[in-house]
Amino acid sequence: MVTGADGGLAALVMGYDGVSLGEYCVGPNIADLQLISIEYAPIVREIRRTLEIIQRGELEEVTVTSGNSAVFIKTMTDNLFSILIMKRDGAIGRGRYLLKLKTYELLRELS
Amino acid sequence: MVTGADGGLAALVMGYDGVSLGEYCVGPNIADLQLISIEYAPIVREIRRTLEIIQRGELEEVTVTSGNSAVFIKTMTDNLFSILIMKRDGAIGRGRYLLKLKTYELLRELS
Repeated sequence: MVTGADGGLAALVMGYDGVSLGEYCVGPNIADLQLISIEYAPIVREIRRTLEIIQRGELEEVTVTSGNSAVFIKTMTDNLFSILIMKRDGAIGRGRYLLKLKTYELLRELS
Repeated sequence: MVTGADGGLAALVMGYDGVSLGEYCVGPNIADLQLISIEYAPIVREIRRTLEIIQRGELEEVTVTSGNSAVFIKTMTDNLFSILIMKRDGAIGRGRYLLKLKTYELLRELS
């Protein structure tokens, strides 16, 4: 997934408790993955809670675009979600598609 | 913006303190806008803080897709951001484009 889309930097599968179950990254300048997992887990948890409160259905996907990166988050199970981190000018559409595809495949393997 | 894209439900301009500065919504079944602004402000604030910590640049856009809605958030100034809430099966690409465009126009008027 990371190498399949130009500009892919890292991918993680992690729990809402902030524990990463698997990660892959390329290049030397990638931000600290441990930090990312610890920082994003409560955000995704909070968004899920919010959606419950405002009754807009189950969370499926979150995208965060910033000055130099694009982060895609896809919910997997009640306990797990996947993250793909890309360069802002990377092949973002393809990365998002691959995250969906690979998350789906992983879920099938897990079930 | 809300009426310009099929499936648009509501749009808000709000502060990170959770105070809505302007809102527009269509239809009777829209979730409580006040609640949305109160719930989303801390999330956007938290994502901004996270990006600072992991040094991925300034936050620009957040997208949250759930079972029955798509929410687009666009940062405006240090104190303001705009939100567009759409039906999940609406013209999401067009809505996202209009949010960008209108936010840009509003910023130009404000400056």
